[in-house]
Amino acid sequence: MPSSSQFARMRQGFGEKSPEAKAAINIHDFFTLMAVRIVLAQLKSHSAEAHKELMEFVDRNSLNDGDKFCADLMRESPRHKALALRILEVRSSYCKEDFEWDNMQRLAAQLVDESNKKLMREYLLETSNIEKDK
Amino acid sequence: MPSSSQFARMRQGFGEKSPEAKAAINIHDFFTLMAVRIVLAQLKSHSAEAHKELMEFVDRNSLNDGDKFCADLMRESPRHKALALRILEVRSSYCKEDFEWDNMQRLAAQLVDESNKKLMREYLLETSNIEKDK
Repeated sequence: MPSSSQFARMRQGFGEKSPEAKAAINIHDFFTLMAVRIVLAQLKSHSAEAHKELMEFVDRNSLNDGDKFCADLMRESPRHKALALRILEVRSSYCKEDFEWDNMQRLAAQLVDESNKKLMREYLLETSNIEKDK
Repeated sequence: MPSSSQFARMRQGFGEKSPEAKAAINIHDFFTLMAVRIVLAQLKSHSAEAHKELMEFVDRNSLNDGDKFCADLMRESPRHKALALRILEVRSSYCKEDFEWDNMQRLAAQLVDESNKKLMREYLLETSNIEKDK
C-alpha cells in the first residue's frame, strides 16, 4: 500500500492541480450538463420555442467544457443570454443544494468493491476454463 | 429555480442512472487513473523493469474505461497481472481512505461561484466595450 506521504507527493506533483481539484473541475462540467438538461425539461412544458432554440444550440456546441458552452450561449442572442443566466443559476443551486454528495461517495466505494470482485471472478473463471480445456 | 420534485424527476428520467451514480462511475475511472499513477511512482524508485512494462502498456491502452484497462492488464502476462492486482488494491484504498471528498465538494462549490462571476464579468466588459466603440 502506498504511504500517506506518497499520496501527498502525488498530490503535489510538479505544480499540478490536486486530484480533488481535478475531480472538482470534472464534476463542475457535469453539473453544467445537468443544468442544461434541467432547464430543457423546464422549457419543454411551458416554452416550446425557447426549448427548440436551446436544443439547437446544444446540437451545435459541445458541453465538454461547460464554461465555454455558457460563454458562447450568452453571446448567441439576447434570448440565448437569458437561457445562459438560468443555466448558471441552476448549476450553482444543483451543486450546493440538490446533488447528493454523500450518496456519490457511497456509490463510488460500492462500485470499486463490486468492480474489483467482478474483475477477479471473471479472470479466475476464464483461467480455470483454460485449464479444463487443456 | 427548479423544485425538488423536478430534480427527483430528472433523477429518475426513463430508467436512467441517477446523476450521483453517473458521477460515481466517472470518479471510479478517475481513481483507476490515479492508482496507475501511484503504482508507476512506486515502481519508478525500486523496479525499473516493471515501471517500463506498465508505461508501455499505458501507452498502448486507453484509461478512459478503468475496468477494461485492468481486465486487459490482468491478461497481458503473469507480471502484468501482479501489477493489475496492485492497481485494484490501490484504487480501493484511494477511494475509501485517501481521497478528500469534503475537499472536492468545497472546491466544486467555490468553482461554480468563481466561474459564474467570471462569465458575467467578461460578458459585461465585452458588451460595455462594444457600447463605447459605437
